[in-house]
Amino acid sequence: MADARYTIGLDFGTNSVRALLVDARTGEEIATSVWNYEHGDAGILLDPHDPDLARQNPDDYLTGIEKTVTAVMARARERGIEPEQVAGIGVDTTGSTPIPVDADGVPLYRRPKFANHPAAMAWLWKDHTGHAEAARITETAERLRPQYLAKCGGTYSSEWLWSKILQCANTSPEVFDAAYTWVECADWIPGILTGTTHPSVIKRCVCAAGHKAMFNDAWGGYPDAEFLGEVDHRLPRIRATLPDRAYTISDTSGGLTQEWALKLGLREGIPVAVGAFDAHLGAVGCGIAPGVLVRILGTSSCDMMVAPLNTDLPDIPGLCGIVPGSILPDSYGLEAGQSAVGDVFNWFVNVVKPYGSAGSHEALTEGAAKLKPGESGLIGLDWHNGNRTVLVDQRLTGMILGVNLHSTPAEVYRSLIESTAFGAKVIMERFEEYGVKVNRVINAGGIAVKNPVAMQIYADILNRTMEVTSSSQTCALGSAMAGAVVAGIHPTFASATKAMTTTEDRAFHPNPTAVAVYERLFRVYKSLHDAFGIPGRTADVSRLMKDLLAIRDEARS
Amino acid sequence: MADARYTIGLDFGTNSVRALLVDARTGEEIATSVWNYEHGDAGILLDPHDPDLARQNPDDYLTGIEKTVTAVMARARERGIEPEQVAGIGVDTTGSTPIPVDADGVPLYRRPKFANHPAAMAWLWKDHTGHAEAARITETAERLRPQYLAKCGGTYSSEWLWSKILQCANTSPEVFDAAYTWVECADWIPGILTGTTHPSVIKRCVCAAGHKAMFNDAWGGYPDAEFLGEVDHRLPRIRATLPDRAYTISDTSGGLTQEWALKLGLREGIPVAVGAFDAHLGAVGCGIAPGVLVRILGTSSCDMMVAPLNTDLPDIPGLCGIVPGSILPDSYGLEAGQSAVGDVFNWFVNVVKPYGSAGSHEALTEGAAKLKPGESGLIGLDWHNGNRTVLVDQRLTGMILGVNLHSTPAEVYRSLIESTAFGAKVIMERFEEYGVKVNRVINAGGIAVKNPVAMQIYADILNRTMEVTSSSQTCALGSAMAGAVVAGIHPTFASATKAMTTTEDRAFHPNPTAVAVYERLFRVYKSLHDAFGIPGRTADVSRLMKDLLAIRDEARS
Repeated sequence: MADARYTIGLDFGTNSVRALLVDARTGEEIATSVWNYEHGDAGILLDPHDPDLARQNPDDYLTGIEKTVTAVMARARERGIEPEQVAGIGVDTTGSTPIPVDADGVPLYRRPKFANHPAAMAWLWKDHTGHAEAARITETAERLRPQYLAKCGGTYSSEWLWSKILQCANTSPEVFDAAYTWVECADWIPGILTGTTHPSVIKRCVCAAGHKAMFNDAWGGYPDAEFLGEVDHRLPRIRATLPDRAYTISDTSGGLTQEWALKLGLREGIPVAVGAFDAHLGAVGCGIAPGVLVRILGTSSCDMMVAPLNTDLPDIPGLCGIVPGSILPDSYGLEAGQSAVGDVFNWFVNVVKPYGSAGSHEALTEGAAKLKPGESGLIGLDWHNGNRTVLVDQRLTGMILGVNLHSTPAEVYRSLIESTAFGAKVIMERFEEYGVKVNRVINAGGIAVKNPVAMQIYADILNRTMEVTSSSQTCALGSAMAGAVVAGIHPTFASATKAMTTTEDRAFHPNPTAVAVYERLFRVYKSLHDAFGIPGRTADVSRLMKDLLAIRDEARS
Repeated sequence: MADARYTIGLDFGTNSVRALLVDARTGEEIATSVWNYEHGDAGILLDPHDPDLARQNPDDYLTGIEKTVTAVMARARERGIEPEQVAGIGVDTTGSTPIPVDADGVPLYRRPKFANHPAAMAWLWKDHTGHAEAARITETAERLRPQYLAKCGGTYSSEWLWSKILQCANTSPEVFDAAYTWVECADWIPGILTGTTHPSVIKRCVCAAGHKAMFNDAWGGYPDAEFLGEVDHRLPRIRATLPDRAYTISDTSGGLTQEWALKLGLREGIPVAVGAFDAHLGAVGCGIAPGVLVRILGTSSCDMMVAPLNTDLPDIPGLCGIVPGSILPDSYGLEAGQSAVGDVFNWFVNVVKPYGSAGSHEALTEGAAKLKPGESGLIGLDWHNGNRTVLVDQRLTGMILGVNLHSTPAEVYRSLIESTAFGAKVIMERFEEYGVKVNRVINAGGIAVKNPVAMQIYADILNRTMEVTSSSQTCALGSAMAGAVVAGIHPTFASATKAMTTTEDRAFHPNPTAVAVYERLFRVYKSLHDAFGIPGRTADVSRLMKDLLAIRDEARS
């Protein structure tokens, strides 16, 4: 066993699952494998009549584990690494992505009558069908439990557990009635691997519970039945199925079952860590620590920080979650984020399909790189999928302003990048206004690694050096770090972080000229942000088009 | 001469010139010919560094006359019509499109040193380089001559004569100094055909002078030298070259010169009517009369009405011009319009190039036709080229709001059509608020004839039946009508209108369901219009995204 130095991270994303085998002593990434979900549209079950609906077939998760782990182990064996040398597994998933299950913990989509029922599937994080239910929960909490809201940014989101459960009760009562309880994907998968999916034993992670289900030790765990009953009389029945305790990633869900050990070619009984959301384990994989803002830039963004548990941390308005233990076991985890980042760029490339057939991300990025800050005269609001932080309102939409008859796709594309950067700046400023200072920014995710033009724009708009993690698979790496901690290879995450994480030598430094222009553009963005985003706000926006033209004319001269 | 029943209309558009030979007794359109200008980008000289700049090489006008008239006469001869049977010519052009000329009336671009100088060319109507100068003129008039502003909508435009002359003085003094005077394209072309380009004899049309040069008999013609001197000390020199009188289209510029008669194969000496702007003669060709709103829908729109000269007509804020004789000699001409209509759709198709290579106007229109009012959740401001009426501000820009990750190009395209219709509704409401009631709407121009989807949207948004003129070349037809009046074939325009104009049997009637949805969407549009368009206006726009989603959700359910 002295040689059991490898761990596996499993990362369940929006469109695919990835397995990563890591040398836990060095952080070396030995082998990785990705498998695209096979159901729906790029893994997402959609409803053409309702752009808010986004579901997944959990079979894809299970198929994906087998496909990716066996592929990774096959490659490991080519390097002389044996299955016996794998000591632990960690798991991260999207979330809140809950699945309705019966009293035995079996998901309802397995029943023939629900096999094609969207409500019996996994409700993907970005499903926004429950916006009316979210408003109901927010309104009830404002009246009865303001303390609940204070910990989740002041507004309960349609992306979160209780909104989704209630939406199911309202629109698919046959599924709601058949569900004994609901489990997060992040809990269900470790449960599957360790044979602990039964509701009486499944471990719920504090990451999912604390951020998206109003769980907090300060009020005894999940929200109380009286409050939930005020929201809707059908909810206390679900509350009664939930435990009082939640777990961190330094806890073990259980040991790998014989069935899965055989399927995957691994040792039976190796520990599987309690799960967490992808972004949170991604932050771990990036090397998060106090003073470090980790930004995971994928289809959406997660902006995360930690603060020691002994910090006197105020509630921060608009922050989705401040949860002890949600990122690192011994710290507050602070989570913010943008509902769409890469998805905004993907919309332009894949749905609008500009420039005839020549409008790839690469071509548009190349065109955008030739533009100076401000010279397009365009500005956007990056709310194509709502606003998660700091407005916490999924019923906001995207905007582009300053369009003229010569506005090119490259200009629009650059303005889309800039709008997401302005959104990120609003988040960073909110952290700092409440005393959580940002000394370093470490970026991860596809955009961070692949798009230096976007990273330079981010550096110029945030006025911070943008570092990029060395790993292109930080979520899976963070999961593998959790596997290393539960396997005992590292006693603490601090030790795992030191051994297993690094950032690239390349970093993006702010350009003072660009910074100055972007400060002016940010004032325009902030005016639009507040005018359209803050309910009841009156404002004079009549100067904004002129301000953009003045900035444009200066940039061009 | 009893058989000289034919007249020619010459229509100088933004990208091409058209000649039309008409039987003036019946309105039958015998032959037509179009020639695309050969200089610049689709006939427009652009500056890649300044999207406001738009010029034309006047050689294109002269070449175009010869190309199109000889082509038309060749076809006429095939039908047995002889050159002797052509009795008169009328001319319309874009405007304000002024040309700097020397003391002999020769345009400066003919001098070798200015042959490639953009400032020595024709300054096309949509050239917006003079916005600072327009602001200077407006500000000076507000102080000293408010009566000037009252007749042109309260704001002097960068598209108009004095803004362009002053911009030339400020940025190209070598051209300004070499110019003895400036002549409108609409005056220069009749002058060329009749040998009357010399500044001492050239006839200036009231249409150009009254709408774009602050000419009004009430204050003795063009703006006085003292006022112009307050605007800029260099302007009185130009003022001194301008006459006291302006002419209507029932006046004759002169007789066709021998030189042009030979070039064109027409009779020497036939009368050429005084010119007018294309939209105004288009309105004549559509059969304009009191109570009739004529909308000419091309790259931009002109929305025109007439009111008898004995009407007690108030000043109407935001209307570009209210000028006696500018459309029909015996009526006030009222001109409003949108700075871009077809140009907005062209931007999307030709610059954005959506849907890969499948984003033609036809394909997008087909997609747009499948959508219900409100179902996209999108709304736009149609200010991609500024706002001519009722805000009179070229420094406004386009906007699109309500974008989500599924917003399709067809949805965007429909919202662009709708935004131009909402802009048209603002104009119509402004007419009616000031007592000029709209009983009929007659549409002309490419969009009216070719796009029934757009016309139905216009009917639903304006809540009026949209009639479409039978002629696809109403500007040229109106010019031919002017030719018929100066030739004496018709004693009045009323007689010419009765004999020569008709509308199609097909008309587009408002659908009450769509009307109701569009009334709600119009409130959203109007809120955005006022918030972004009225300087200093404070407003609560925070409801608008939610209103759009509510309308969308109802439309989809």
